Amino acid sequence: MSIVYLCRYSASIARHWRDLLERALGETVLLGPPHGTLSDDDLAAVDVAVVANPAPGLLARMPNLRFVQSLWAGVDGLLADGSVPEHLPLARLVDPNLATAMAEAVATHVLALHRQLPAYREQQAAVWWKPHHQPLAAECPVGILGMGEMGKASAAMLRALGFPVLGWSRSAGPAALDEVLARAHVLVNLLPLTAETRHILAAPLFARMLPGASLINFGRGGHQVVPDIIAALDSGQLSHAVLDVFETEPLPAESPLWRHPGVTVTPHVAAETDSRTAAHCAADNIRAFRAGRAVTGLVDRARGY
Amino acid sequence: MSIVYLCRYSASIARHWRDLLERALGETVLLGPPHGTLSDDDLAAVDVAVVANPAPGLLARMPNLRFVQSLWAGVDGLLADGSVPEHLPLARLVDPNLATAMAEAVATHVLALHRQLPAYREQQAAVWWKPHHQPLAAECPVGILGMGEMGKASAAMLRALGFPVLGWSRSAGPAALDEVLARAHVLVNLLPLTAETRHILAAPLFARMLPGASLINFGRGGHQVVPDIIAALDSGQLSHAVLDVFETEPLPAESPLWRHPGVTVTPHVAAETDSRTAAHCAADNIRAFRAGRAVTGLVDRARGY
Repeated sequence: MSIVYLCRYSASIARHWRDLLERALGETVLLGPPHGTLSDDDLAAVDVAVVANPAPGLLARMPNLRFVQSLWAGVDGLLADGSVPEHLPLARLVDPNLATAMAEAVATHVLALHRQLPAYREQQAAVWWKPHHQPLAAECPVGILGMGEMGKASAAMLRALGFPVLGWSRSAGPAALDEVLARAHVLVNLLPLTAETRHILAAPLFARMLPGASLINFGRGGHQVVPDIIAALDSGQLSHAVLDVFETEPLPAESPLWRHPGVTVTPHVAAETDSRTAAHCAADNIRAFRAGRAVTGLVDRARGY
Repeated sequence: MSIVYLCRYSASIARHWRDLLERALGETVLLGPPHGTLSDDDLAAVDVAVVANPAPGLLARMPNLRFVQSLWAGVDGLLADGSVPEHLPLARLVDPNLATAMAEAVATHVLALHRQLPAYREQQAAVWWKPHHQPLAAECPVGILGMGEMGKASAAMLRALGFPVLGWSRSAGPAALDEVLARAHVLVNLLPLTAETRHILAAPLFARMLPGASLINFGRGGHQVVPDIIAALDSGQLSHAVLDVFETEPLPAESPLWRHPGVTVTPHVAAETDSRTAAHCAADNIRAFRAGRAVTGLVDRARGY
């Protein structure tokens, strides 16, 4: 039985992660293409694969593979490109540090919008001293789409700041979503990207939001329809959009999002996998799988996450 | 016995506050100059004055004045211009909503610095996609100078976000201050402005801070030495300064602070007096004073706040 690590980062990052995994697992970890070569014997020996962004088709060449552990929380890319053969159990990364990082990102940008930092930034650039009325957090409900590990951690942090929080999961249905949209001053998307949630951040949803509310997308680029976001900002339906994820990353220089005054662009940094903890979370899960115990983050192919 | 309200806001704001005070107190409130005239009989009848920014010298003309209630949390202006005769008890405003507003402002700007929003804003302007390593709040101690109502509320909110908080009060002495300065990634000033704290935010203090730390001044403009802040930013001793208060407000257009890339200027909006609650807090305090009960926020002239 061997463990293989597959990614398409740079060679030095790939080796760094392989070393972290070896230390966390206490056993040798093979490094697959493009950074290492695997013989037929190697391929036959692999029972567990740890993956970030593996080259498509690699996993299908491992006849004795029994379990795939992602180092990312989102597995939409793996499912979309068919990297993971259908019969194999696949786990996404469940790391408490990842949920904490996401909650901090949500708290940061919800507060920045709540305290009107984009307006004050523009005023500073214009050398314009003008105070605005400032409500308290308790008066400004925040909506969260997606109440998994990250949504729950974000909701708890926002509540500690005094915000009323309205959480929504796909299982709660469309009527519950309408209630969230009608009341939220800021809407935060943390949904997994699935066939059902693709392009959910679009004109029909914006039309049901409180006029002048703001949007934060920390989910996936595939959730958002960029022309609809720009139209909603230009009409005043949305006041501001904080976007951390894009269908093409890095965001191409020609995208109008870079230069729109109502858009904050960040380079997919809301919650990055933490190398100090992720290898241990992955290793714990692999040990659980091999021992026949329950694993965390097991993906339901029908749901898509 | 009469109550008078004194401010130099616009006439409409003055009348708005007078009406709020009348409703909260359940009695007539005289409006003093410049918005109302007070006869000698009026002046003689006043036992309590509620003040925001009164014209200097007015209070000395009220022979039976026994208590002055400020609608502001900071009374450095009143003490400096001699508005309040020395023998009179003076109370600053203690309003839980004011402390909550300040805590929200502190949380907002500490998180904005922690999550590197100024850097990402510059990168967006330059159309530059570049993620930076992001530590968790738990790894980034925050120092707070001034642990009164606002400091305590801010510390509690920062701790709820996961930040280790190092609080310092003047009574803790200089050795304790050095310890805070040596460890804080972000230093937040909430001190009252007194002879001892004037110009505390200057080169000698910055030199004892962690290199590359950031500064937030939500106290008073008199706490900061602007040329020293700019020099510390230019040398890299400070990474960023968030300044909400200035010796002259509005901040003059010729100030270099408006245009320095390492400075965030906000127009004295960290915590504004909340008209919905402040009148009630002032009224409760006035009733307590008249009934001989303990009042909140009584100013100690020797301490200066």
